[in-house]
Parts: sequence; C-alpha cells; structure tokens
Amino acid sequence: MAATVTTGFAPPPAPPYYPVIFSSRRNDRDEQGHDVMATRMFELVQQQPGFLRFESTRDAEGFGITVAYFDNEDNILAWRRHGEHADAHARGRSDWYQHFGVRVARVERACGAARIGHA
Amino acid sequence: MAATVTTGFAPPPAPPYYPVIFSSRRNDRDEQGHDVMATRMFELVQQQPGFLRFESTRDAEGFGITVAYFDNEDNILAWRRHGEHADAHARGRSDWYQHFGVRVARVERACGAARIGHA
Repeated sequence: MAATVTTGFAPPPAPPYYPVIFSSRRNDRDEQGHDVMATRMFELVQQQPGFLRFESTRDAEGFGITVAYFDNEDNILAWRRHGEHADAHARGRSDWYQHFGVRVARVERACGAARIGHA
Repeated sequence: MAATVTTGFAPPPAPPYYPVIFSSRRNDRDEQGHDVMATRMFELVQQQPGFLRFESTRDAEGFGITVAYFDNEDNILAWRRHGEHADAHARGRSDWYQHFGVRVARVERACGAARIGHA
C-alpha cells in the first residue's frame, strides 16, 4: 500500500470524539505480509460502527503513527475485539513490530486550516 | 532532520495525560526552512512545563503526524501561546502546509509491547 493512507481531511464532527493512536516501529521482516494486513485493516476499520476517519503515515526508517477516530469508546472496544483485528494485533506483536503502543483518547478541542483544498 | 523524531518509547505515566495530535500535508516548498523550524520546535517543546514525550513521522509523500504529550491542558495552552511556537504555526499556515489539523485529546487507556528493547 502507499505510505500515506488517510480517509482525507474532511472535517470530523464537533468534539468530543475518540482517537485510537497507534505508534509502531517496524522490524525489517515480511514487508508483504505487513502491507497485506495494513490494507485489510484499513478496509475493515471503515466498516466498523462509529468509525469516523483514519490517518496513517510511516517514514523510510519504519516509524509509523496511525490514528483512527471513532464516535465513542464502546465502538472502539468492539473494534478491538473484532476477530481479524485481534489476529492482526497478535501477529504484529510476534512478527512485524519492534515496538508499538496503543492509546485511546478523547478529543476535547480541534482546529485546522486548508491552504489548497482537501488532501 | 531525520524523518523519525521521537523522544523514544519509554513508558509514559499512567493515564490520564494529554496528546496534541498534529497531522499535516506538506507542500513542495522550502524544505530547508521547514526542517529548521521542525528541529527548533522539537528542541523547544521538550523544555516546556509538563512536556512528557514526542513522536513524529512523515512519509515520502509529505503526509505527517506528530503527537506531543503533556501532563495537563493548561501546559498545552501555554505551549500554544509560546511566541516561537505561535510564529511557527502562522508560517506553517502561510508557507509550508497544504493542510493541517490540530487536536487536543485526553488519553484514557494505554497499552504497548516491546519486542526488542526501546526504539
């Protein structure tokens, strides 16, 4: 998949809403397997109840940050428990990442600015 | 500066704590000016009261996510009002980004796993 994956900069709803912040450092193994999983998770998360938006980026050194936004914490818990997602999480731990962290947060305030339309 | 900038995966304190999520798409102008600013902001944010940690990544297509964590919202407001930071924000809007968004959130839950030490 392309390094940049995002559902775009379309304005999210007014706060509060809930980001899941996933930061990770890849090991140097199984690029294809990781990309297949990442593409599938991007498809799948967009089908989850309460999904709002998704932004993901990873640099050439393998450090990545993904933020998936949901409407509430119950829907995040359901996504966490989704079978394919849980499997991907377990394989990430064993096969793909040197290190990762997951944080569930609540957005209190937001602002933004567009210079040239939507990206 | 290197694409990956992070103060590392050292465990943050127990929640709650407060991430500022900055996502942005670069235009193709003034790479040097942008890098000088980004390096300076990385130095400066680490000196702010209540700063906890910093993770930042940008891919080859110019899409980046930076997350700076603080201990409370008052310290985020002070950082937002810091003169050099406010200047960088204004120049980002006018000179460096096609689009950006800033969200202040509160982390409720966190988990993580290390495979190979700290990154």
